[in-house]
Amino acid sequence: MAEAKTNIADRLLGLIRGKQNPCIVGLDPRIDFIPDCMRGDDDSFEAVRDAFIRFNTKIIDAVCDIVPAVKLQMAFYEQYGSHGLEAFRETARRAREKGLIVIEDAKRNDIGSTAEAYANGHLGEVRLSDGSYKPSLDVDFITVTPYLGSDGIEPFVEVCRKRDKGILILVKTSNPSSGELQDKIVPGEGSIYEVVARYVAEVGEDFVGNRGYSAVGAVVGATYPAEAARLREIMKRNIFLVPGYGAQGGEAQDVVPCFNEDGLGAVVSSSRGIIYAYSRKPYCDEFSAQEFHLASRQAAIDMRDSVCDALKMNEKLPR
Amino acid sequence: MAEAKTNIADRLLGLIRGKQNPCIVGLDPRIDFIPDCMRGDDDSFEAVRDAFIRFNTKIIDAVCDIVPAVKLQMAFYEQYGSHGLEAFRETARRAREKGLIVIEDAKRNDIGSTAEAYANGHLGEVRLSDGSYKPSLDVDFITVTPYLGSDGIEPFVEVCRKRDKGILILVKTSNPSSGELQDKIVPGEGSIYEVVARYVAEVGEDFVGNRGYSAVGAVVGATYPAEAARLREIMKRNIFLVPGYGAQGGEAQDVVPCFNEDGLGAVVSSSRGIIYAYSRKPYCDEFSAQEFHLASRQAAIDMRDSVCDALKMNEKLPR
Repeated sequence: MAEAKTNIADRLLGLIRGKQNPCIVGLDPRIDFIPDCMRGDDDSFEAVRDAFIRFNTKIIDAVCDIVPAVKLQMAFYEQYGSHGLEAFRETARRAREKGLIVIEDAKRNDIGSTAEAYANGHLGEVRLSDGSYKPSLDVDFITVTPYLGSDGIEPFVEVCRKRDKGILILVKTSNPSSGELQDKIVPGEGSIYEVVARYVAEVGEDFVGNRGYSAVGAVVGATYPAEAARLREIMKRNIFLVPGYGAQGGEAQDVVPCFNEDGLGAVVSSSRGIIYAYSRKPYCDEFSAQEFHLASRQAAIDMRDSVCDALKMNEKLPR
Repeated sequence: MAEAKTNIADRLLGLIRGKQNPCIVGLDPRIDFIPDCMRGDDDSFEAVRDAFIRFNTKIIDAVCDIVPAVKLQMAFYEQYGSHGLEAFRETARRAREKGLIVIEDAKRNDIGSTAEAYANGHLGEVRLSDGSYKPSLDVDFITVTPYLGSDGIEPFVEVCRKRDKGILILVKTSNPSSGELQDKIVPGEGSIYEVVARYVAEVGEDFVGNRGYSAVGAVVGATYPAEAARLREIMKRNIFLVPGYGAQGGEAQDVVPCFNEDGLGAVVSSSRGIIYAYSRKPYCDEFSAQEFHLASRQAAIDMRDSVCDALKMNEKLPR
């Protein structure tokens, strides 16, 4: 019997098992939330870039032995144009250097050669003037939006195949209005998010690694536990990226349905709750703004313990 | 009676009327299609950036008296990271300097503060280290994807209000698989694309300018004329961005249903068909690769004439 190939999903699961932690840190830098001591004080885009790199580097170094991955929300970088992308690339490089998987939350979507350009730029290699190819942003996973149908997903899937990368397709998002489109019921097919989930399960079949999970996963918000349970049934071998924990209202108990019986299959992401922990209770009592990275480390440990406790209560996490 | 304010939709329509042309040029640079004489020949990202700027500048200068707007497909820039965004910004600057409206095709989508970051970065102003605000990418219109519901659209709408910008919401896209999600029928509500269209019409009501069109528009592919006719009924005062003309198979007659009875209300975009005209019949017989920009000019004129003829045949274009 041929053995399935080790892939990016295996590496992510290996880190989750090794660190006994399915929680990841969202690196969503906002200049108004970064402590003064890291911020700089002029009106240049360069100052923002440098502040983002300084801030993210301290956080990465403080949490890299605890978490398996980081999630970079592209919007917070891209809003500063080319300088923002320099900060993004340097942050991703640092995270990889520290052994972390890099998940880019960019919700890209387009068709044909345009989707190919996104896929090549973020996951693959881009063509240069002399005809050679080089990696550009080179993250491990990227989130993609399914509104355009399979034409919009396939070019990403092709790059996953070629370069051992992963994608996470938006299925049921964490926001209050996610149901306006995603919950619409199609006769005989269930909700739109179920239609998308079946597509994710089907496309993902080709990309299942040794640990039983696919490099094609799904985004499923922490704020809809009932829907998550239903989606877990449809997408048994797909990794769920679960945003919405903490600031958006999702709690440890809410994310349990996102996991499989083996205690695996999901990564739970928190951004503001971790990286700006220094500015809120109880962390601000213990840590100064200068110690923001230590507050983040403590918040990451607390989140890990909460989620692992919730999973253990349900006898789901293999320890 | 209070008069509606002049807005970005008015300016776009003014340029369309003034130039008697609803056709726009898509600036989607691909290093392998750019003529040798513009390309450079080393393996740096800088060389690609410089080639894109040289190529786009020549095209803009050659078509700026003919077309009302250009459409920049962000994927082709962003794939080269920060260097790509430098080329994007310089191209947008050049186009504005030449009096053109700049439409960014980026299909962005996210929620809450993340959607705000996209909206601020692309249409609005971003906060810098000293607390001041500056425009960043600063385009006139951006395309957005509606999968996340109204939470994902409202932050863009807010920036449109504040800074007199516009958005174009994906409704029915031009690709073969667009129906997989968009054509699903919801009992009592019609197709998903009709659900989105009604939302676009409703949100757009607040942004109707003096010429009767809203700064909140829709993306409707040239390849689905029957659906376009239905959508024109739902979205009477919304501008349609119509991609898919030329390379994707849409012909002049197909785009007629995208227009209103007044002969206005749509912009038809062609990218490859115009910017790489030098490499195909009949233009390659008349123009050398060095004259690529002149071939683009001729192709833009031919497209204008084809679309205007099709509209006139239907007695729709006011001349």
